[in-house]
Amino acid sequence: MYMDIEFKKSQKGLLYVVSAPSGAGKTSLCKEVIRRIPNLEHSISYTTRKPRWDEVDGVDYHFVTPEVFNDMIQKGEFAEYALVHGNLYGTGLKITEEKLAKGISLVLDIDVQGADQLRVRYPEGVFIFVLPPFFSLLRKRLLERHSDSADEIERRLAKAYEEIKHYKKYQYVIINDNLEKAVEEFCAIILAEQCRAFRITAHPDICS
Amino acid sequence: MYMDIEFKKSQKGLLYVVSAPSGAGKTSLCKEVIRRIPNLEHSISYTTRKPRWDEVDGVDYHFVTPEVFNDMIQKGEFAEYALVHGNLYGTGLKITEEKLAKGISLVLDIDVQGADQLRVRYPEGVFIFVLPPFFSLLRKRLLERHSDSADEIERRLAKAYEEIKHYKKYQYVIINDNLEKAVEEFCAIILAEQCRAFRITAHPDICS
Repeated sequence: MYMDIEFKKSQKGLLYVVSAPSGAGKTSLCKEVIRRIPNLEHSISYTTRKPRWDEVDGVDYHFVTPEVFNDMIQKGEFAEYALVHGNLYGTGLKITEEKLAKGISLVLDIDVQGADQLRVRYPEGVFIFVLPPFFSLLRKRLLERHSDSADEIERRLAKAYEEIKHYKKYQYVIINDNLEKAVEEFCAIILAEQCRAFRITAHPDICS
Repeated sequence: MYMDIEFKKSQKGLLYVVSAPSGAGKTSLCKEVIRRIPNLEHSISYTTRKPRWDEVDGVDYHFVTPEVFNDMIQKGEFAEYALVHGNLYGTGLKITEEKLAKGISLVLDIDVQGADQLRVRYPEGVFIFVLPPFFSLLRKRLLERHSDSADEIERRLAKAYEEIKHYKKYQYVIINDNLEKAVEEFCAIILAEQCRAFRITAHPDICS
């Protein structure tokens, strides 16, 4: 007879760090995936930016004063933070750890620089880059939105052109030419990542 | 204006190397996944074993003489090969390369030792280990099959007990407590692996 062994997936939540150039469709993609997958939530950032009329504190962001934000930086309370156009944005460390420990996975919508910080802090995180099939589609999509001025679009494209060069630092790339297909790929990544061998434990441990 | 860039998934087939202890349900799992996924085939091994009454040459195996097999070894024509219970089994290199180049992915049903050889030859392959939720289930399933003697079952269990210690060398583990769930996980791994950043190319190359 052999000692019995139980094999189990990790019960901890996973961190999905998603970056993309403007116009790649990251926001719609993440929203739809979160709607479909249980125990998956959007990570709510802290920001010193003023809320827009339709934004709710604690839902869209945790809106805080620059004093509170700086105090949090001093206390090492951020998993990552960055200054973007004069406003501070950051991911709370405690909030994140608590969710993951409860088995809730988080989608972090974050730029290339923030992802660099998170890669150090969460090497076991899942890093996904969303790209259009063609770079030229970004201009087309930004124009179609009718929400940005021509100058703003050019500024976003210049940034996008720099950002896309970083795609190979990510584990996965979702080429978003069709929202439904992109959602399926994101969902497949989530299911596959739960099967990663390093997230599987044997009780009792047989590998050491 | 910017030079346009196209992002594309690799058109090459992928190699799925699947190992499992006897009774983990690997055969049914692989068969069902191959039935569902287009351009995915079972890799047909060479063997010196005599065909069983219901086995077809070129479908189940390529049945060859020991002389032909040894000649192929000398010429380096195997991606991996092994002697199992006095019979030689091997994966043809040329056959494999041709399928992959044509965009056909292959499932290789192979033991832990064969997988070790393939990991060196195909570091970009996808290595999957299939496990039962409990080791004790293997005995139960082998007994239920009524196809092996008590001695044969004990021999298989002893081998299984050694094999499962290698699961962490694989990239993925599928815990097979339900065939449909296991099939979904395998299919998700296939879709996710096609999105791996190192399989995505930019034309023109923007990362170098």
